Amino acid sequence: MIETPYLLFLGDAPDPLAAKVAQGIKDWRPENAIAQFRMEGCKADLKLPDMDLAEAKAAGAKTLVIGVANRGGVISAAWKKVLVAALEEGFDLASGLHNLLREEPDLVAVAEACGRKLHDVRIPTVKYPIANGEKRTGKRMLAVGTDCSVGKMYTALAVDAEMRERGMKSTFRATGQTGILITGDGVPLDAVIADFMAGSIEWLTPDNDPDHWDIIEGQGSLFHVSYSGVTLALIHGGQPDALVLCHEPTREHMRGLPGYKLPSLEAVRDMALQLAQVANPDCKVVGIAVNTAGLGEDEARGYLAKVSARMDLPATDPYRFGAGPLVDALAAL
Amino acid sequence: MIETPYLLFLGDAPDPLAAKVAQGIKDWRPENAIAQFRMEGCKADLKLPDMDLAEAKAAGAKTLVIGVANRGGVISAAWKKVLVAALEEGFDLASGLHNLLREEPDLVAVAEACGRKLHDVRIPTVKYPIANGEKRTGKRMLAVGTDCSVGKMYTALAVDAEMRERGMKSTFRATGQTGILITGDGVPLDAVIADFMAGSIEWLTPDNDPDHWDIIEGQGSLFHVSYSGVTLALIHGGQPDALVLCHEPTREHMRGLPGYKLPSLEAVRDMALQLAQVANPDCKVVGIAVNTAGLGEDEARGYLAKVSARMDLPATDPYRFGAGPLVDALAAL
Repeated sequence: MIETPYLLFLGDAPDPLAAKVAQGIKDWRPENAIAQFRMEGCKADLKLPDMDLAEAKAAGAKTLVIGVANRGGVISAAWKKVLVAALEEGFDLASGLHNLLREEPDLVAVAEACGRKLHDVRIPTVKYPIANGEKRTGKRMLAVGTDCSVGKMYTALAVDAEMRERGMKSTFRATGQTGILITGDGVPLDAVIADFMAGSIEWLTPDNDPDHWDIIEGQGSLFHVSYSGVTLALIHGGQPDALVLCHEPTREHMRGLPGYKLPSLEAVRDMALQLAQVANPDCKVVGIAVNTAGLGEDEARGYLAKVSARMDLPATDPYRFGAGPLVDALAAL
Repeated sequence: MIETPYLLFLGDAPDPLAAKVAQGIKDWRPENAIAQFRMEGCKADLKLPDMDLAEAKAAGAKTLVIGVANRGGVISAAWKKVLVAALEEGFDLASGLHNLLREEPDLVAVAEACGRKLHDVRIPTVKYPIANGEKRTGKRMLAVGTDCSVGKMYTALAVDAEMRERGMKSTFRATGQTGILITGDGVPLDAVIADFMAGSIEWLTPDNDPDHWDIIEGQGSLFHVSYSGVTLALIHGGQPDALVLCHEPTREHMRGLPGYKLPSLEAVRDMALQLAQVANPDCKVVGIAVNTAGLGEDEARGYLAKVSARMDLPATDPYRFGAGPLVDALAAL
């Protein structure tokens, strides 16, 4: 568990997209996002107060979170100066970078000297079990996509937020680095050893109250040949009661795979449901979440209405128009 | 690559089944199996010459392969004596045990002093790429099962052996520890990091001659909730041209999962084929391999005839009755 609240480090982000981890934290856990720290030339701005380390410390921030992607896979000397100073100022550090904090001898030495923690959420620190497939109490929803990066995390976060607003019992279960940094906890599934993937998801979503929902962040897609195995481990380890199909309508081919077309929502529905029913025969597809960021408002609403009619399921862009229709469907299960 | 031929270490195997790795080597690469080394109380016997270390060395053995499961997950003091002596005698050691050779300081020290190698095939030593899904030249067959441990490795080995006997170009591609020890090479897929599973199989089965067959060992089952993600990574990373369905007809529930029934061969055919066609639209199911070890000969032949008629596919027990019908079907593709 990472100590909250955070000071969000945006570094020298070359554009706003590079700071999407920080943006996610601010969007979904604003109470964790006290301030932003920007370096010379930073092109991202979360519209949070800009604070230096001492100011953020005084304001109560406990952990400096690296909310930006680094360039070239190295932690630059300029970043290092800030990270070292942050440790000295009394901050823990948290990062989802491939380039691990713990593999930087200077950061390790300073953290030790200052009694601070280095959190690398990129890799697991838990010894997960092998999945046993036993039925667990409580309810689970999983977001499954036509492709990678179509809004599965935002969908799960929006459903969780809406459920909690309605007074329902809900927990967002992070399965990727950004989700883990947002909530401070989760399983970095893409870094788990193959044999333990499904078991790690069973571990993440244990027995719970009968009316409690685990809202599980999805990963990859059954139709994305690079990562499909990860997706299936989520479906079988999560033993979901409900699936939400996620889609991005302007995508021309599978992400990173120019030769691969996106599957239809019908194909994803049929394939995911059949596989999910191996672990939970009662599983149902309850709705559709569309990332309409590439469409104008009228176009987006028109698309949703058409998809909803075609699939005979509620459809929404949960980030743009709210997750209400999805939560209605889940509550009715 | 592990140096061949081998001296097969059977240790104090409590029963023949405990030595199934050694048995696999003897069955499929008899030219690699010079002799067996048995300790006091060993209940396994491969009907190979019993040799001590000096005799095996003189006979040309290069590597002592641990061909037996250890008890309690530790390498016993009695084993250690033999392993240390083997290093001193000039053998490399190879093992598929969870308990790694490289984590035993005494073995590491002696190996270094003697200039010998410790091969732990349990874990990968290669940095695999992320799968790119690009079409590769050459042909590939993958064994997929209704369950774990239904004979996928033996099926692949038998198909490979039959192809080579017919003068066809074929390579068995090991994806598990036993297969790797049998051939000296492969990917220990269950120990690969999630993101790189499919990429490791692309790496294992690269571009090849148009008339060359990679015969890929299967793992797990799409219907086994503990390991299904590994199976799907094989299907998408292997981009097979042909699938062979593997089945064990006396199994009462999924291996290790008492609450899970086995899927029908029809369900496996439909699900595996649909997923395989994402990566290779021309993929076909070409035949069925049944592990009939639990059936008498007449019963086995009757079962195969019935399954073959029902599924309209050639069916054989490739270990008991030969892989001919499967290779006929593959050659006709």
